[in-house]
Amino acid sequence: MQDIQQNETRATLLVTCKDRPGLVAALAQALYTQGANILDAAQHTDSESAKFFQRIQFDDPELAGPDRDGAMRRLEATVRGVANLHEMDWQLHYEATPARVAIFVSKTDHCLYDLLLRHRSGELRCEIPLIVSNHETLRGVADHFGVPFHVFPVTAETKAEVEKEEIKLLESEQIDLVVMARYMQILSGDFCDHFAARVINIHHSFLPAFAGGRPYHQAFSRGVKLVGATAHYATRDLDEGPIIEQDAISVTHCDTPKDLVRRGRDVERRVLSRAVRAHLERRIVVYDNKTVVF
Amino acid sequence: MQDIQQNETRATLLVTCKDRPGLVAALAQALYTQGANILDAAQHTDSESAKFFQRIQFDDPELAGPDRDGAMRRLEATVRGVANLHEMDWQLHYEATPARVAIFVSKTDHCLYDLLLRHRSGELRCEIPLIVSNHETLRGVADHFGVPFHVFPVTAETKAEVEKEEIKLLESEQIDLVVMARYMQILSGDFCDHFAARVINIHHSFLPAFAGGRPYHQAFSRGVKLVGATAHYATRDLDEGPIIEQDAISVTHCDTPKDLVRRGRDVERRVLSRAVRAHLERRIVVYDNKTVVF
Amino acid sequence: MQDIQQNETRATLLVTCKDRPGLVAALAQALYTQGANILDAAQHTDSESAKFFQRIQFDDPELAGPDRDGAMRRLEATVRGVANLHEMDWQLHYEATPARVAIFVSKTDHCLYDLLLRHRSGELRCEIPLIVSNHETLRGVADHFGVPFHVFPVTAETKAEVEKEEIKLLESEQIDLVVMARYMQILSGDFCDHFAARVINIHHSFLPAFAGGRPYHQAFSRGVKLVGATAHYATRDLDEGPIIEQDAISVTHCDTPKDLVRRGRDVERRVLSRAVRAHLERRIVVYDNKTVVF
Amino acid sequence: MQDIQQNETRATLLVTCKDRPGLVAALAQALYTQGANILDAAQHTDSESAKFFQRIQFDDPELAGPDRDGAMRRLEATVRGVANLHEMDWQLHYEATPARVAIFVSKTDHCLYDLLLRHRSGELRCEIPLIVSNHETLRGVADHFGVPFHVFPVTAETKAEVEKEEIKLLESEQIDLVVMARYMQILSGDFCDHFAARVINIHHSFLPAFAGGRPYHQAFSRGVKLVGATAHYATRDLDEGPIIEQDAISVTHCDTPKDLVRRGRDVERRVLSRAVRAHLERRIVVYDNKTVVF
Repeated sequence: MQDIQQNETRATLLVTCKDRPGLVAALAQALYTQGANILDAAQHTDSESAKFFQRIQFDDPELAGPDRDGAMRRLEATVRGVANLHEMDWQLHYEATPARVAIFVSKTDHCLYDLLLRHRSGELRCEIPLIVSNHETLRGVADHFGVPFHVFPVTAETKAEVEKEEIKLLESEQIDLVVMARYMQILSGDFCDHFAARVINIHHSFLPAFAGGRPYHQAFSRGVKLVGATAHYATRDLDEGPIIEQDAISVTHCDTPKDLVRRGRDVERRVLSRAVRAHLERRIVVYDNKTVVF
Repeated sequence: MQDIQQNETRATLLVTCKDRPGLVAALAQALYTQGANILDAAQHTDSESAKFFQRIQFDDPELAGPDRDGAMRRLEATVRGVANLHEMDWQLHYEATPARVAIFVSKTDHCLYDLLLRHRSGELRCEIPLIVSNHETLRGVADHFGVPFHVFPVTAETKAEVEKEEIKLLESEQIDLVVMARYMQILSGDFCDHFAARVINIHHSFLPAFAGGRPYHQAFSRGVKLVGATAHYATRDLDEGPIIEQDAISVTHCDTPKDLVRRGRDVERRVLSRAVRAHLERRIVVYDNKTVVF
Repeated sequence: MQDIQQNETRATLLVTCKDRPGLVAALAQALYTQGANILDAAQHTDSESAKFFQRIQFDDPELAGPDRDGAMRRLEATVRGVANLHEMDWQLHYEATPARVAIFVSKTDHCLYDLLLRHRSGELRCEIPLIVSNHETLRGVADHFGVPFHVFPVTAETKAEVEKEEIKLLESEQIDLVVMARYMQILSGDFCDHFAARVINIHHSFLPAFAGGRPYHQAFSRGVKLVGATAHYATRDLDEGPIIEQDAISVTHCDTPKDLVRRGRDVERRVLSRAVRAHLERRIVVYDNKTVVF
Repeated sequence: MQDIQQNETRATLLVTCKDRPGLVAALAQALYTQGANILDAAQHTDSESAKFFQRIQFDDPELAGPDRDGAMRRLEATVRGVANLHEMDWQLHYEATPARVAIFVSKTDHCLYDLLLRHRSGELRCEIPLIVSNHETLRGVADHFGVPFHVFPVTAETKAEVEKEEIKLLESEQIDLVVMARYMQILSGDFCDHFAARVINIHHSFLPAFAGGRPYHQAFSRGVKLVGATAHYATRDLDEGPIIEQDAISVTHCDTPKDLVRRGRDVERRVLSRAVRAHLERRIVVYDNKTVVF
């Protein structure tokens, strides 16, 4: 079923630092000396903040050799050498070690199905060892795809306690990424800090923006002609985290509030899965509360 | 150059009233009895407010006959009869009497060119007897298209006085529609009331929304992935009038604030010209601060 | 789960005839006299062929009364009266009698999931009493949604015989619509004729078009920047039937043939479900090998 | 008016060669040694053909120094050194030497206005020293923008001779790029060869494709729901050259052939100006009759 093959020799390096001459050469030279072959390199310079960003995907044949651990140590030492010299922040991801993703849901299934189907068809390079919910509703979906389903009922009183248990579960399962696939609970600031830049949320978006409840009804009352969705990393400031993906579709006066909800579902699932895919392909760098998405 | 032929016999009826049975039949029957042939009829019922809306485009052969004034009187009497019975608001527009449009501009030319080019190619069924500006900058464009150009410099002190002169000019020229094609002055509430549902404005739109100045810079700082535009009727509440058209396009981290402005221009001109076209084709009904766009 | 309520009093009338004055009035008047209330009426005149098309959605309170059969007979007699007078082709669909849909699949599941999920969430107003396949592959999906799954293995030799059995099954189940959700067998001309304008197919579309096998590889070789899909009614001329829906998305040189297939899947399922929805809402009229989609 | 500043120190290098390890490092190192600072680097490897492509935009401070000619010679020698070693094809473009563009038109003005307006607003980094036409029709537009207008009437008999004169003019004006902005003459194979990968053409595109005349009428007869446009480099095989940009928009049964033409104009001008902009920013590499557009 998998149409993306995992490649033992492949790795992706993400780098951020102050812009200065010679960065591209320094990284390329270091990887070349290491015996690695660059497959894809993209870079970005934010001229306003004078910051430099680079994503390098490469093959290091030694990673598939008999001493993988030694090869990883040597590779990391090489990168660390350049990084220390140029004061770089860096992450190194090995394709043979796919991210482990937990999906959080409540009662709505459209985003969950979309993620699980794309995972099964090989579009999302990750493991999905568990689904977390505050309701039993979607257990059947989890069963159908063979993913363990954990229910944590939440009340205002138990919320802090429950989150601690959830974090314990996520850590014991070595979860790298939490995807809030229409999980209708607000995560605490502590939770978001704990998994900084590792929780992706999706919410509807309108022009103009609507505060308060029943946003689709507000949008209908205002006669909007566009319905959108925004995927972002969750932060303490609710819905104000770094934006990863956005999209919108046209609606008309014929669309009832129910139609807007339906149209909104289509945008939401599309935007969420694109954001998750970009994260898993290690295309995203977060800085200054915004993102570079290579 | 004109690829839309004006048709002496053609008219468009726009109707709004409380929903009740028999409205479609009553109007269709009345027009049929009058000898008119319905070319296109669209209707909409807003079930939340129980309001009925209809747009009927028809040919009345008598309108091209020797007694046009008499035919118009008879037609209007017929419509008035049905309308009174069912407490309808109605407008009747004759294609042989195209709307007279004034374009307001400041220094930016992209929307102005777009409107004048579309007008010249026959896409906008109207006359454009004048352009108003608070600057001399775009006189050359007006000259190129042979449209009289009126400059009204505006200061905080003279604003009220200048608007009075502008209204006088617009009335003496029997202007039906004012298009604010990036006119960088806020029209007073009095002006908007005077031309209620007859002033179309365009402004940029972002998710999330940004208050204050330099919105494209704010959008850049926030790392938005979508840049949009909204065309609406101008009302006392700045940028809160009934929405006519909206659209948005994708942007990336590579787009500088200047790029966002450039991309924004493309959306603005596209959205504005669609809104103006819908108005001129008599496709828009305003109610409850929103629109039906047939 | 259903967010579309079936309404016993609601019906939709589709009409085609030669254009002439008074058609709208005649139909509206007849329905009004019958006691029906028009909820939505849309019409179209093709000026090239001088053909008139109308879709009228209405409530007839008597349909929910004690003598539903009698009410239906009276309604049909009323419509037939007008239709005979004006030589109209017409169809009358009752919302309380939802269409019965059979989905044909092979091994690919993206379109099947999309249809079944939209059906379950109430977006597709129909019954889905069966899925037909030439392979066992997708039985698990059918089971998950509780839909009977019928496998008819097909070879070149057995094809004609198998189609007869399929038609027998479809007729015994009173199937109104066949949706080919990536069914990788070409239906015979006889099958298409039997279910004329009742088989919807989806296929990929490219600019330029590519004949022969492996179209996504051909598209890659040609360096296309757009990948599309077309939903159409199946006819004897393969892939040449009346077009219902089309859409396309941008691709780049980075997209491998595999990526094109993946991106293509997204367009295919979106276009197919929109086409099926339009059919089920009785929005489509076929004429001269093309469609009006109200 | 210009919002893109020309930068004397800036240059863009485009490279194509057989893929092999160390290419990125070799180029980055060479530029670094030369004193250049890489601003943006993008690369692509076509794994099917094992070809490597890179675009590097960089600043070389010496280019703004007292000995610009010497700096250019040194830079080119540096690049040539790496290129010879790795058998690279390469192009080096200096931002201070903008491309010189000739626009070819016939009688239709929408693409011409779009290009000239974008040029004037600084979106297209080039000089436009001349417009060529086979008709007088658009001289007024050329005059309005202050661009010399050359008319070459063409008949079947004079075509070969006229093309020779056109080539002479283009060469005497040192033209780098010819943009066919709805020029309704087929350029000869000799002309296309002479300006290989330097003539950009725009044509409408449909799903399915339509051969023969009046394509918009054919599209209408076929009931298409999508109207597109393709920008490509002109080659001997008419409309079969490497695709640069494509886009499409939705249309409905309401759109008459005239409406399709109008909608088509909007797509054409948008696609053409994007393609020209990509070429001028030196983002395009042509290979195997397709393009990489960085």
